[in-house]
Amino acid sequence: MSLVKVKQYKIKVEWGDCDPYGIVFYPNFYKWMDSAQWSYFKSIKQPISKLEELYNIKGLPLLHTEAKFLSACVREDILNIQTSLVNITNSTLKIQHIIKRKNKIVCAGAEIRIWAEENNGIIKSKAIPDKMKKVFEYYLVEEKKV
Amino acid sequence: MSLVKVKQYKIKVEWGDCDPYGIVFYPNFYKWMDSAQWSYFKSIKQPISKLEELYNIKGLPLLHTEAKFLSACVREDILNIQTSLVNITNSTLKIQHIIKRKNKIVCAGAEIRIWAEENNGIIKSKAIPDKMKKVFEYYLVEEKKV
Amino acid sequence: MSLVKVKQYKIKVEWGDCDPYGIVFYPNFYKWMDSAQWSYFKSIKQPISKLEELYNIKGLPLLHTEAKFLSACVREDILNIQTSLVNITNSTLKIQHIIKRKNKIVCAGAEIRIWAEENNGIIKSKAIPDKMKKVFEYYLVEEKKV
Amino acid sequence: MSLVKVKQYKIKVEWGDCDPYGIVFYPNFYKWMDSAQWSYFKSIKQPISKLEELYNIKGLPLLHTEAKFLSACVREDILNIQTSLVNITNSTLKIQHIIKRKNKIVCAGAEIRIWAEENNGIIKSKAIPDKMKKVFEYYLVEEKKV
Repeated sequence: MSLVKVKQYKIKVEWGDCDPYGIVFYPNFYKWMDSAQWSYFKSIKQPISKLEELYNIKGLPLLHTEAKFLSACVREDILNIQTSLVNITNSTLKIQHIIKRKNKIVCAGAEIRIWAEENNGIIKSKAIPDKMKKVFEYYLVEEKKV
Repeated sequence: MSLVKVKQYKIKVEWGDCDPYGIVFYPNFYKWMDSAQWSYFKSIKQPISKLEELYNIKGLPLLHTEAKFLSACVREDILNIQTSLVNITNSTLKIQHIIKRKNKIVCAGAEIRIWAEENNGIIKSKAIPDKMKKVFEYYLVEEKKV
Repeated sequence: MSLVKVKQYKIKVEWGDCDPYGIVFYPNFYKWMDSAQWSYFKSIKQPISKLEELYNIKGLPLLHTEAKFLSACVREDILNIQTSLVNITNSTLKIQHIIKRKNKIVCAGAEIRIWAEENNGIIKSKAIPDKMKKVFEYYLVEEKKV
Repeated sequence: MSLVKVKQYKIKVEWGDCDPYGIVFYPNFYKWMDSAQWSYFKSIKQPISKLEELYNIKGLPLLHTEAKFLSACVREDILNIQTSLVNITNSTLKIQHIIKRKNKIVCAGAEIRIWAEENNGIIKSKAIPDKMKKVFEYYLVEEKKV
């Protein structure tokens, strides 16, 4: 089953994450997705720092991010971010983040990131190396419609 | 011409906005879009604080946000955010933010916000009042494809 | 011993907490101290939300904060914040935060907060009620020199 | 007169800078002081990037920061940060930031930063080179008591 392919990242909403309405200031959801993404690649034993050493990449630059907001979150909420790889193209990865509070989805986001090599300070998208593509494909799960 | 319908918001990228790669940590683009949105409604003489008093709303809660990233930004970049209303439905507004550095688009984002009234602590989407709908429609411009 | 009087709060340094030098952008240490402070009052069974209901206060507004930085922190560092009450005056509380990485202090900070009541929108410092003062005095520990 | 020695940095408080009480979340004051500090060194024609190239330093690492909070700030407040050099020792600089809203001080902070060279990844404080010390001494002003 796909449960081993979906990785978890937990966050507690703090006072400083909330706005004058008392709810999470929405850019923080993206901050947490970014953290969950670093954690995801480490969980599948492909930490970004290792990929950088092996493949001359500089992180996985973003092409597009989005999020759908279903329910406001407040201080002390414990959020579980379930991260998975939901699409792989020649040179991009799509990472989905389903954010839950007590098993109810409060936010669903996605990041499309590029496989890009750096040469002389110029970053250019490249085909994901076959070896890495196979690793990523093993973790591919279906995108959740929210 | 539509130029009077597009409102400007300027930001300077600071050290603390950047990540270890030296480029803007992407959730900050959303923070700036949110600031630009507050500024937008003020520019069209409909500050959100006024709308809250008149219509029993509590801000304009978010339904969906997204951003496409075209070019990395670094410290000291001056960014111009051009904000406009690009879609109006029965109870939502779509706000587009085109972020430029020296006339070149570096990021293009959008926020879909809900017209929602609060009653007894419960927030529920409502039809945008006719009077406000007319105001918003005056400012409606075509969404920019990026 | 004073160990039950010192409360712990744990944080993991994330990518988005770090600046272009790859180290924690220092305002984040204050964000974590603030979070640790909310956690502290909850740990001693005096959550600020309860104090607000009982005593007409609005949080514990800040008078002064400071921090000494001993060692740079980087992504994935696990930090333990040890929070304690180190001074009580007529209307202020001094909270010390010792931030450690693997038992080595990396940052030592303090917050001086005011007991202040709100009347008609005006916030004014007040003497800490005797009952609360006794509770706080129970938790008083000596300030750590760093 | 000392006015040319004090440099200005302006900020507008935005929605996302404020906490559930509707006032500035205090770590943001430190973020603005950091921005003001970058701006300060540029204003006195000693941008940190230039100092890094000339002197093998890596920024000006922090030793200590502090702030006194006099008045809460809210969304749309325009804040003027007046930054100056108020102490110079063998290997440290003390930078004071007086933050005003309409000529009334709302926050007064200071940063003590170290002149530190990097060798083989190890950062070590060094005596400020004579030439730079003279430049800095020209800008030295008396610390404001707040």
